[in-house]
Amino acid sequence: MTADARARTGLWLVGARGSVGTTAALGLVALAAGHAGAAGCVTASPAFAGLPLPGWGDLVVGGHDVSDVSLAKRAEALVDAGMIPAPLLAATAHALDVADAEVRPGHRGPLVPGGSQQQVAERLAEDITAFAARHGLARVVVVDVSSTEPPAHPSAAHDDPAALAAAVREPGRVVLPPSSVAAYGAVLAGAAYAGFTPSAGMGLPALQALAAEAGVPVAGQDGKTGQTWLRTVLAPAFADRGLRVLSWAGTNLLGGGDGATLADPEAVRSKLASKTRGLRDLTGSDVTPLHIDHVPDLGDVKVAWDHVHAEGFLGSRITLQTTWSAYDSMLAAPMVLDLARLLALAHAGGVAGVVPELGFFFKDPWGSDRHAAADQADDLVRWAQGLAA
Amino acid sequence: MTADARARTGLWLVGARGSVGTTAALGLVALAAGHAGAAGCVTASPAFAGLPLPGWGDLVVGGHDVSDVSLAKRAEALVDAGMIPAPLLAATAHALDVADAEVRPGHRGPLVPGGSQQQVAERLAEDITAFAARHGLARVVVVDVSSTEPPAHPSAAHDDPAALAAAVREPGRVVLPPSSVAAYGAVLAGAAYAGFTPSAGMGLPALQALAAEAGVPVAGQDGKTGQTWLRTVLAPAFADRGLRVLSWAGTNLLGGGDGATLADPEAVRSKLASKTRGLRDLTGSDVTPLHIDHVPDLGDVKVAWDHVHAEGFLGSRITLQTTWSAYDSMLAAPMVLDLARLLALAHAGGVAGVVPELGFFFKDPWGSDRHAAADQADDLVRWAQGLAA
Amino acid sequence: MTADARARTGLWLVGARGSVGTTAALGLVALAAGHAGAAGCVTASPAFAGLPLPGWGDLVVGGHDVSDVSLAKRAEALVDAGMIPAPLLAATAHALDVADAEVRPGHRGPLVPGGSQQQVAERLAEDITAFAARHGLARVVVVDVSSTEPPAHPSAAHDDPAALAAAVREPGRVVLPPSSVAAYGAVLAGAAYAGFTPSAGMGLPALQALAAEAGVPVAGQDGKTGQTWLRTVLAPAFADRGLRVLSWAGTNLLGGGDGATLADPEAVRSKLASKTRGLRDLTGSDVTPLHIDHVPDLGDVKVAWDHVHAEGFLGSRITLQTTWSAYDSMLAAPMVLDLARLLALAHAGGVAGVVPELGFFFKDPWGSDRHAAADQADDLVRWAQGLAA
Amino acid sequence: MTADARARTGLWLVGARGSVGTTAALGLVALAAGHAGAAGCVTASPAFAGLPLPGWGDLVVGGHDVSDVSLAKRAEALVDAGMIPAPLLAATAHALDVADAEVRPGHRGPLVPGGSQQQVAERLAEDITAFAARHGLARVVVVDVSSTEPPAHPSAAHDDPAALAAAVREPGRVVLPPSSVAAYGAVLAGAAYAGFTPSAGMGLPALQALAAEAGVPVAGQDGKTGQTWLRTVLAPAFADRGLRVLSWAGTNLLGGGDGATLADPEAVRSKLASKTRGLRDLTGSDVTPLHIDHVPDLGDVKVAWDHVHAEGFLGSRITLQTTWSAYDSMLAAPMVLDLARLLALAHAGGVAGVVPELGFFFKDPWGSDRHAAADQADDLVRWAQGLAA
Repeated sequence: MTADARARTGLWLVGARGSVGTTAALGLVALAAGHAGAAGCVTASPAFAGLPLPGWGDLVVGGHDVSDVSLAKRAEALVDAGMIPAPLLAATAHALDVADAEVRPGHRGPLVPGGSQQQVAERLAEDITAFAARHGLARVVVVDVSSTEPPAHPSAAHDDPAALAAAVREPGRVVLPPSSVAAYGAVLAGAAYAGFTPSAGMGLPALQALAAEAGVPVAGQDGKTGQTWLRTVLAPAFADRGLRVLSWAGTNLLGGGDGATLADPEAVRSKLASKTRGLRDLTGSDVTPLHIDHVPDLGDVKVAWDHVHAEGFLGSRITLQTTWSAYDSMLAAPMVLDLARLLALAHAGGVAGVVPELGFFFKDPWGSDRHAAADQADDLVRWAQGLAA
Repeated sequence: MTADARARTGLWLVGARGSVGTTAALGLVALAAGHAGAAGCVTASPAFAGLPLPGWGDLVVGGHDVSDVSLAKRAEALVDAGMIPAPLLAATAHALDVADAEVRPGHRGPLVPGGSQQQVAERLAEDITAFAARHGLARVVVVDVSSTEPPAHPSAAHDDPAALAAAVREPGRVVLPPSSVAAYGAVLAGAAYAGFTPSAGMGLPALQALAAEAGVPVAGQDGKTGQTWLRTVLAPAFADRGLRVLSWAGTNLLGGGDGATLADPEAVRSKLASKTRGLRDLTGSDVTPLHIDHVPDLGDVKVAWDHVHAEGFLGSRITLQTTWSAYDSMLAAPMVLDLARLLALAHAGGVAGVVPELGFFFKDPWGSDRHAAADQADDLVRWAQGLAA
Repeated sequence: MTADARARTGLWLVGARGSVGTTAALGLVALAAGHAGAAGCVTASPAFAGLPLPGWGDLVVGGHDVSDVSLAKRAEALVDAGMIPAPLLAATAHALDVADAEVRPGHRGPLVPGGSQQQVAERLAEDITAFAARHGLARVVVVDVSSTEPPAHPSAAHDDPAALAAAVREPGRVVLPPSSVAAYGAVLAGAAYAGFTPSAGMGLPALQALAAEAGVPVAGQDGKTGQTWLRTVLAPAFADRGLRVLSWAGTNLLGGGDGATLADPEAVRSKLASKTRGLRDLTGSDVTPLHIDHVPDLGDVKVAWDHVHAEGFLGSRITLQTTWSAYDSMLAAPMVLDLARLLALAHAGGVAGVVPELGFFFKDPWGSDRHAAADQADDLVRWAQGLAA
Repeated sequence: MTADARARTGLWLVGARGSVGTTAALGLVALAAGHAGAAGCVTASPAFAGLPLPGWGDLVVGGHDVSDVSLAKRAEALVDAGMIPAPLLAATAHALDVADAEVRPGHRGPLVPGGSQQQVAERLAEDITAFAARHGLARVVVVDVSSTEPPAHPSAAHDDPAALAAAVREPGRVVLPPSSVAAYGAVLAGAAYAGFTPSAGMGLPALQALAAEAGVPVAGQDGKTGQTWLRTVLAPAFADRGLRVLSWAGTNLLGGGDGATLADPEAVRSKLASKTRGLRDLTGSDVTPLHIDHVPDLGDVKVAWDHVHAEGFLGSRITLQTTWSAYDSMLAAPMVLDLARLLALAHAGGVAGVVPELGFFFKDPWGSDRHAAADQADDLVRWAQGLAA
């Protein structure tokens, strides 16, 4: 069967009004209207030309958020921070308001009083199905772009679909962290899903099994946008040269809301773990100290410094330093749009459960132990072309 | 036919007593005797395990040089410069002297008085064949690691094998630059050849045709050791992400003999051209200012700074800076050994003429327009495994 | 006598509509109206509090320019380049138009047909005196912020005031480069003068002597805004520690108009010379390779990389790398305002001729061989406080 | 009175066999014998020429250490690490053994069983006075170069000399941390003292008062060798320009014994506090995240990255990044020799108690709130010249 995803498709953002969600929503409007080029979108590069993906104009944005600051309001803050040009907001403000009208309240606590997590997830799923019906969508892709949660409390039910299905139905029982309730809601709504944050989300094996049963493709986890991407570009290259990495030390400086969240040592734990896992695999070194510092005056800019120390011929030493500086949301947003298009293609092609070939987009790819960016890029292109062929 | 190159093999270095030649010769002794590991050698990485390459102990070093400073003497200078550990020289000094006894005088001028370039090349070829006979070698691989020449004067004979064969026989006529006379000598000796410098060498189409006729495999050109390698790792990764490189500016600082040679604006022209060619192909940008500065106090260390400016989503800007610092000869020497082993394999497998799959090792690969390091690494492994299968 | 410069003062900008001129004019309006703080202004720091300098509201802007693109139009381009916030231009646009009305055509060629350079200078001086009269100014400070000229043709008259006074009166004789005609015009108008570019300007000894005779204070040359300032901060510190600088290599990347001008190898010669002179004095090293590259996509941002290699105890080596990134006009503009205030104070205090204590502001200070930034800062404060005491 | 310190002087190193102690001892031998120049020694710079300081040959090394690995053995490890050239060790090995014979066992625990801290200190003092007698020394300077201790437990006796004198005499009472017992021993021996580590040492006010009473000059604390020195060079320069530092983030990578010690979060607390204190004073910013990572493969090299974000004119932003790389012990050792010479001068000049003018050498200067390196350099020179005049 040949997949064809050229159809109206929903992009449902969990955390729609955050920095990444706002940038994705605004950017989509700008692309559809021709106000901006598609730089940063993988699916706009030549290798994807001609594939039957939904067009920019086919994507309809909705989502959940606990914030009631509107997309346009949030975008204004990003204009003030120098990230988004003022004329671009002016040109897209109306369409942003239309998208904002499709944002529904997220669930704050893990439960409704006296109820079960099943009930919460069903309420979320209803928002998604109503959205699909309202807009006559062929399918919906849910992307979690909300803030990082602390690591989830372990539970045996996380590994067993049947046990999980039972546990979420127990009134008053909290077996899933909030991000996983949202992921479960996507499954109930029959929506494809991508986990762009390090939060548990659909990362629990039991949820992935339920997604496979429900026939929805899912991918994750934790968007590989900047420093980690760069590391997975460089580390395999050292290996290809036979150069042995001795240590890889790094620091991230970031302001913005993400910086504040990650200043919390609990929340940062998930992040640091997923950031160094691939690197250790690729280099074999476990000397990989890494820090994330909240530097509010940087606004939405993220600066990452890395120091690589490697051994070359006859014990000689090599050092490589890199400094990367970018608006992190500007790196993430086009990847979110790419995931919407590619998961739509997967769904159209009948792919169900974890899609390892989407590992290119993630720090901690589900269903794959490939971290090398060039290999992942090859896999991705081959997979997409294969589905469409 | 299955190639098998496990046999005594000559490694004939043009410029044997230079920094790269000395490091390669010393390193080979150290590897063969187990005094050092093979970090930096591509052919020692897992992908090449089990291939029928000559072992370190199978490689015998000889060469040409215009200098009469011995290998051991040159190595002492590298010890003083902090590049080679003193105990390693102590352990290898005797074997270095043995190798040095196989170094013959290179030709200084382009001609012998009253003679032809054919005569010069034949004299060089005789040195190689005598070396092979003396040591009972299955084959010889010539690698040019001499200093960079100024660009060669163009001649129609460079493109036409018959015309070239005639021209070199005219007494008193200088149609080939010195590096190409050496390359021609390799062809006459039936030796495989790698051009590790930007000098013309075997880069002239007529010489490559003669090599193909003679049944010898050749590869080049200009070893991709440090900054250029890093660029061909990074630039394709930007493209894979859909990020548009706007400019890529760089500076190299180096001391040592190479630095002094490249302080000559004539000599540096060849180098700068081959360094930016691949980058422009890979990025589409022609804003690629690049400098090479002679900084004698750095000794054999080379420091390279790059500043990449790219456009991301919605016109946002990304900057990446890299600083690379390494002993350049320590990067080059193991690649020279790799080329000896792999060209021996090619020769054993009956490969004649230009070998595009060896492009991984070169800034300006002959017979190939692939510059992306990851793609080149894949090609190389596939090719070597294919030859051996 | 105690200087008191609290009075209406003209700031006459040669090259008023360039990037620095526009930023200075707009910034002055913003400061006077309280739309912006005075970060970057030396005279706003605590050491200068209470000195009888003209207030921001006392400074009236006029100038010469060969361009007829208005200040407001130029400022729009700087808004588009992300350098000036749009709301700030909106708040200052009217006042900018008022300033722009005081910009008179600069002289393009060195001469009027059939006339002398004296006549050209007198015409320029008349523009200045008319401006002073129109606004009831106590004094005028001329600051040259125009594009860099190629080095001036040497002439014996440049060293001899009498010879120069005669030469400029010869019809058809071109003895002064354009920037020096403008400087001579300032002398004729009795205006103080600062040379913020590397062009000859008032740098000719004969002109400085004429300025001293005319009783006007003058200072220069070539604003020490970014990389050179940083070097004169760091180099003395190495010396204070007894660390011996072996080499100091650097590269500048810049877009904007200045970048285009300096892409001209002739023009860049003046610049590079003044940039390395102080460094060589401070370090004793003459290994100071330096490049300026035009990278248009950087817009008005300037990025400077430096690599310092030093010798420490027992021959050990130290490396320091610095990367500086800033809008160069944003560094220059507040220094132009500082010079206006401080030269007004000097004039009020009866200082005539070269003012060495203003060396803090310049790469190539007139009348001083002090380059160390901390020493210059001390000298400046002491001098200003002394004048006012 | 005119100080004259040209006399045999003891340099008693607490932690003599550590990396800094060994480097200082070996370096002193090399300087005295003319095997090496005095780069890195402040007192060898022109400003100190002609002052009546002890010559290199006048300094005699002894010390305490808990390690029994000899100086020569320790130096071998530094040769292997590439820090000390092998020929230099060969030339100094005999003299190092002579110095090593003057190293006495340090006290490990805070007490001898059943005894008092007074007794411990007296034992240490006896070692020093016997050393002075044995060599006919005019005076002894004690410099603490031992590993960093965890922060000391507070005690009221630390602020009151009489209370302290009583407390140390109570059998079984531990009122002083080990570094302070050593400092007290110096006072009892009538020796001058410098605290080159962040450990409490002579930093307790009660000890400083006892030193003043005993007529010995003391200075500290925590040698300002690399990154912190660089920060105190740069931060005042930003202020002199009116540029407002918004944040100053940094990371240190270091291997060696110091790196291992500082990998202990308790020990690192003292260090990080003294590293950021001066910076906050100088910039007014409290966004100064800083990390120290143990990267064993770096050996004795220390790499420090800083990212400075500042506000310039009209709210524009400036970034400065610095990367500093050096053998930290090679920076520290010459400062230890400088302190020996200068404290000898102070002692000869009758200076007693804290010497604020030696703040140049310290991250956390006693008796001074000046942190700006250039100001400290001026103070130092003026003070030394004044004492000698």
